[in-house]
Amino acid sequence: MRAAVMTNWALSVEDVPDPVPGPGQVLTRVLACGICGSDLHMLQHGARQRELAAEMEGDLPPDPMRPRFFEPDKPTIMGHEFCCEVVDVGPGCTNLAVGDVVVSMPGAFDAAGVHAIGYSNVYNGGYAELMVLNDLLGLRVPNGLSHRLAALTEPLAVGVHAVAKSRIQPGEAAVVLGCGPVGLAVVADLKRRGLGPVVAADFSPKRRELAAHLGADEVVDPRVESAGSARLRVAEGRPVVVFEAVGVPGMIHQAMRMAPKDSRILVVGVCMETDAIQPMVGIGRELNIQFALGYQPDEFALALTAIAEGTVDLAPLLTGSVDVDGVPQAFADLANPEQHAKILVEPLRQSV
Amino acid sequence: MRAAVMTNWALSVEDVPDPVPGPGQVLTRVLACGICGSDLHMLQHGARQRELAAEMEGDLPPDPMRPRFFEPDKPTIMGHEFCCEVVDVGPGCTNLAVGDVVVSMPGAFDAAGVHAIGYSNVYNGGYAELMVLNDLLGLRVPNGLSHRLAALTEPLAVGVHAVAKSRIQPGEAAVVLGCGPVGLAVVADLKRRGLGPVVAADFSPKRRELAAHLGADEVVDPRVESAGSARLRVAEGRPVVVFEAVGVPGMIHQAMRMAPKDSRILVVGVCMETDAIQPMVGIGRELNIQFALGYQPDEFALALTAIAEGTVDLAPLLTGSVDVDGVPQAFADLANPEQHAKILVEPLRQSV
Repeated sequence: MRAAVMTNWALSVEDVPDPVPGPGQVLTRVLACGICGSDLHMLQHGARQRELAAEMEGDLPPDPMRPRFFEPDKPTIMGHEFCCEVVDVGPGCTNLAVGDVVVSMPGAFDAAGVHAIGYSNVYNGGYAELMVLNDLLGLRVPNGLSHRLAALTEPLAVGVHAVAKSRIQPGEAAVVLGCGPVGLAVVADLKRRGLGPVVAADFSPKRRELAAHLGADEVVDPRVESAGSARLRVAEGRPVVVFEAVGVPGMIHQAMRMAPKDSRILVVGVCMETDAIQPMVGIGRELNIQFALGYQPDEFALALTAIAEGTVDLAPLLTGSVDVDGVPQAFADLANPEQHAKILVEPLRQSV
Repeated sequence: MRAAVMTNWALSVEDVPDPVPGPGQVLTRVLACGICGSDLHMLQHGARQRELAAEMEGDLPPDPMRPRFFEPDKPTIMGHEFCCEVVDVGPGCTNLAVGDVVVSMPGAFDAAGVHAIGYSNVYNGGYAELMVLNDLLGLRVPNGLSHRLAALTEPLAVGVHAVAKSRIQPGEAAVVLGCGPVGLAVVADLKRRGLGPVVAADFSPKRRELAAHLGADEVVDPRVESAGSARLRVAEGRPVVVFEAVGVPGMIHQAMRMAPKDSRILVVGVCMETDAIQPMVGIGRELNIQFALGYQPDEFALALTAIAEGTVDLAPLLTGSVDVDGVPQAFADLANPEQHAKILVEPLRQSV
C-alpha cells in the first residue's frame, strides 16, 4: 500500500507491505484521515517530544497503560483522526463486519500491550491506504454521515473532553485563546452545550471567521483588543473559564493575568517547552489550572453523535484534501493559517 | 506605646502615639501576636513584594476590596496573628465590650475602604502594645483558652482554607511539602478531619517532629527519601493531593513530577519569584493546580473552635516569646528552623 512514512523525523511516501489483522482486529481501508498539528510538531520537534514522553513519567513508576514512544529510526506512519471502511475481519471479531464505516479512538491493544495508533512502529495510522483497528473499539458511523465529517470526531472529542474537565457551568463566561482545530473544537462544544458567552481570540482572520461560524459570541484579534479586555466588555462580573489552546510558552501566564479571582484555566494547548509563570498571580486570585489531554471513550462517542446529529457544523473546517502522495505538501501548506484549518488525507482521492 | 516599626524595609522599636478607635472600632491591648514568615519576607524582599502587589492586579481593573499596599517610606507596624483584650470601645459598637479577649481576621474597614492590618500605614498590627480592631470582626476567645494558643487561630485558618480548597476526600492521600507554620497547619487540619494518610516532608528534624506530633502518618527527610517515593510506599493506588507549602521556585515543578495522573496540587506556599514549570508533565497526567490564599470568615472561626476544643494541639509550635523590644532579634532567630517554629510577641512579657 501507499503510505506517508516518517523515519528519523523525515517524511517520505513509499510502498509498504499491507497490514494484517490479528485476533480481534479488522482490516480497513482509510476513507479520510485529518492531519493533526501534533503530527507537524512531531516532524519538527520529534527528538524533544521523545524527551518529553520520558519527562511525563516524572518520578513515577512506569505506567503499563501508557503506550511506549516509537523508535524514531524505524518507520512510523502517523494519522490518528481517521474514518475507515472495514474490508476484512480477523479471528474472533464480534462487533464489526465487512462494509462497516467506522471511527475509532486511536489505540490498539494486543498481547504486547497498548499502542498509540499513528505513533507506533507496529500499528500504522491513517496516512496510508489501509490500517488495522481493534474490533471492539470501532464505532459505526451513523448512516448518511459523510466520512469527511466523521473524521473530525477525534479533534472534536478533544474539545468535548476539555470542556468537561473545565467543569464550566451555565452562567459562566468562556475565553478561548487560540482558534486552531483544538480551540475551535472547544468553541463548538461550548456552544453545543448552550454555554457562554464565549470570547475567542486568534491572530488569523480565517480562524476568527471559523470561531464565529461555530457560535463564538465575540471574536477578537489580540492585536486590536486583548481577550481579557473583550471578556470584561461582554461578561464582567461573571465567573470565567479561560481555555488555553495555543500551546506556546507564555500563554499560561497570559491566561492567568486575564483571569479574575477564583477563575479556572483549562490548558488544552500542548506546550512542549519549559514555561514561566508568576505564582503570585495565581495565589492572589486563587486561580485553578486544569491540564487536559485526550478524551474518554464516552466523550469520543458523544463527539461522533454531535456531528452526526448536526448539533455542531464542522464542515467549514475542512479546507483541503490530498491523497497519500500529497501528505508532505499538505504538511507544508498547514503552516499558513489563512489557507487551511483541517486538511484530510483521502487515499481514494476525492478532491474537495 | 512601644511598637516595632518598619520604615523603608528596616525594623526599629520606637515609642509611637497610641491608636484611637473610631466609630464601630475598639481599642485593644495585644496579649500575643505570632511572627509570620510573610513578615520576614516583607522585610527582606519588600520592594519585590510591592511589585507583586501590582502584578497581582494583572490585566484586571483595580479591585476595590483589595487593600492598597502600604507606602514603604511611611511607618508600618506589622503583626497579623493576634489575640487581644478590649480596653475601650468607640461609638456605635454592638459586639464587643471592655474585658473581652478576642481574635479577629486582620482586616479593618472604614470610610476610606479596606485595610490589611499589619500591612497598612493606617492600622497597626500586633507588634505593638495596643491596636484598633473592627467591633464586628472580633471573635471572643472561649473561656479558658490561653491567649498564646488563640494567637495561632490565624495560621491554622490558612491550613483550614488550603485543605478546603483542595477538595480532598476520605480515601485520598495527602503529601505536604514543607513543615513550616503553613505546612504544619495543613497537616493539623487534615488530621483534624480524619483524612490521610498524610506524608509530610521537611529538611528540618524539629519540623518533622512537629509534623509527627500533629499526626502526620509518615514524615520524611527529602535528603533520605523523596516525598514522592514515601507516598508510593504508603499509599500507592490512592488518589493524591500534594500540598506545596515551601514557596520557593521549583517546588511546583517538584509537586507536579511526583503527582500521579489526575492528582490535585494545592499551592499554599507563597513563591514571590518567577517559577518554571513543564506543562507537558501537567498535560500528560491531567493535573490540577489550585492556588490558595488566606481564608474565609467561617474558616477563621472554625480554626478558633478547633484550638479551643482541643481537636488540634498546636502548643508544641510555640517555641519562643519576646516583648515588643525583642521583635528585631526574634526576626533574626526565626531564620533557624531548628530553634523555632512560632515566636509570639507578648508585650506584657510573659516569658515562655
